[in-house]
Amino acid sequence: MRTAAVEAFLREADELVSPYLSRLLTRSERGGAAFRECMAYTLFAPAKRFRPALTLAAVRAAGGRGPEGLPVMAAVELLHTYSLIHDDLPCMDDDDVRRGKPACHKVYGVGLAMLAGDALQSLAFDVLARAAADAADGGAREIRAMLEVTSAAGPEGMAAGQALDLAATGRAAPDVGGDRAAASGDLPVSPVLVEEMHRLKTGALLRAAVVGGAHLAGAPEPELGALRRYADALGLAFQAADDLLNVEGDSALIGKSVGSDASAGKTTLPALLGVEAARRRARDLSEECVRALAPLGAGAMMLAGLAEYAVSRNR
Amino acid sequence: MRTAAVEAFLREADELVSPYLSRLLTRSERGGAAFRECMAYTLFAPAKRFRPALTLAAVRAAGGRGPEGLPVMAAVELLHTYSLIHDDLPCMDDDDVRRGKPACHKVYGVGLAMLAGDALQSLAFDVLARAAADAADGGAREIRAMLEVTSAAGPEGMAAGQALDLAATGRAAPDVGGDRAAASGDLPVSPVLVEEMHRLKTGALLRAAVVGGAHLAGAPEPELGALRRYADALGLAFQAADDLLNVEGDSALIGKSVGSDASAGKTTLPALLGVEAARRRARDLSEECVRALAPLGAGAMMLAGLAEYAVSRNR
Repeated sequence: MRTAAVEAFLREADELVSPYLSRLLTRSERGGAAFRECMAYTLFAPAKRFRPALTLAAVRAAGGRGPEGLPVMAAVELLHTYSLIHDDLPCMDDDDVRRGKPACHKVYGVGLAMLAGDALQSLAFDVLARAAADAADGGAREIRAMLEVTSAAGPEGMAAGQALDLAATGRAAPDVGGDRAAASGDLPVSPVLVEEMHRLKTGALLRAAVVGGAHLAGAPEPELGALRRYADALGLAFQAADDLLNVEGDSALIGKSVGSDASAGKTTLPALLGVEAARRRARDLSEECVRALAPLGAGAMMLAGLAEYAVSRNR
Repeated sequence: MRTAAVEAFLREADELVSPYLSRLLTRSERGGAAFRECMAYTLFAPAKRFRPALTLAAVRAAGGRGPEGLPVMAAVELLHTYSLIHDDLPCMDDDDVRRGKPACHKVYGVGLAMLAGDALQSLAFDVLARAAADAADGGAREIRAMLEVTSAAGPEGMAAGQALDLAATGRAAPDVGGDRAAASGDLPVSPVLVEEMHRLKTGALLRAAVVGGAHLAGAPEPELGALRRYADALGLAFQAADDLLNVEGDSALIGKSVGSDASAGKTTLPALLGVEAARRRARDLSEECVRALAPLGAGAMMLAGLAEYAVSRNR
């Protein structure tokens, strides 16, 4: 699929989810003006909206129209944004630039930035709970979608991945705890551990974006299985591409610092395998995504396009 | 009710919720050993379990047996613990002692402590989503309980209260945004603003503990209305008592620093009204709690006992 078609689709997802997010944030003024501004600051900074686009594409692949995916589209973008704000804090990656602007804590201070991240996380689940409560048919689809998202965010998902990332920074191979056997194929041991970290830190939320959207559209189990395989390869492909952009990307385009992983001594695929092998790995994973979609037919074309975009993007 | 009876009930709630929380944390070892230990550290430090006890008492007041309240009992304790860990960080209250032990970040570092708080927040909602997904009858009660908890935690609740607290520290009256009209009775303006902050920072989660529990037990609307009035007064009473303990409590008993509010220039009721008037206010609010319970009859006796305990406790 042509990049222009994928980029038009990303804009479509943005035009659907951003006004919805904006309404969520302006329901009240509680907490004061600075707190409200701080929550909006990173959420509405220029963003790809890759996760909401994945949800929208999964809804359509499962035969849905699109807007029924909004609660998950909003929830995954809220969770992603909270993780960016917390990631950039001095106690984590200590990054000064995000989405092309000074990082949230550089503008609002560390305390308020942390609280805004906390509040965005709560809001993600509030959106899903409200969708379940408002569902005319009892909310069974919304409950399944919510469970997908809550388990992706927590101590079995994104938060565990962040903890591994923190432990791995400037150190040798991290202690990943259990679940090593699930790691992938022919890679030597250290890259296997790095991919376990990527699976949790990045993959879990991408998977919730895809599978949560499919639940909202009522996808049956065989389709869900194909989408899970797609999403698992996509998570690794996306993070490998992210790490490559941190080595050789254009900081003006990606909207954050370049070279920060190396200077922080981060354990990344390019650092372990070299740039060329990491790029091949990302391509292989992207092709694995496309193969996983075969059972879904033509309706899944945009999901395939998003997987290609994930590894060819320059931002 | 005698204090010993309330304390026995607090132990009963602890004996119900702590093994349940422990099972949640030991489902896997993802994120590594330090991350897992860090999550457990503050959660299993000596704690009153006041919020789970409120839930248990509300379940029984609504005619339930008890264990059906566990998802809310666990969720409110997880959210409370996450808020304590984040509150103690240097960017917030910068407290070194919590639950009678060194604060989480003093042992595990600021980064891991923040992540553990983040993960405990996710886990709170995961517990509720799982309870809804597992419910034999479609999960309608669980959805109502979850919405109560998500909205209490987020930008319309606890997180907004923390933001007001942060803004008020060492400053004049905070900018509380909208909703000032809802503030209480005859107090002069500054205490009204302080109570708006308490309503969000402390009251919202106590209310979710009570009302969420009542939802799980299937309480009908008139009972829910009485419980809401009870919980709203309780939140203010509880925080007033907390602020009084910070002035004149015994740090060994309350398990955290004493005098820290005054040295941080915090806007509290004792600071604004004086200790005597703040103590009277706490007593009045506790009596308001007991009056609100009248429609519920004898089944609500433990809720009344907990309201008395909230203002007479020495820890």
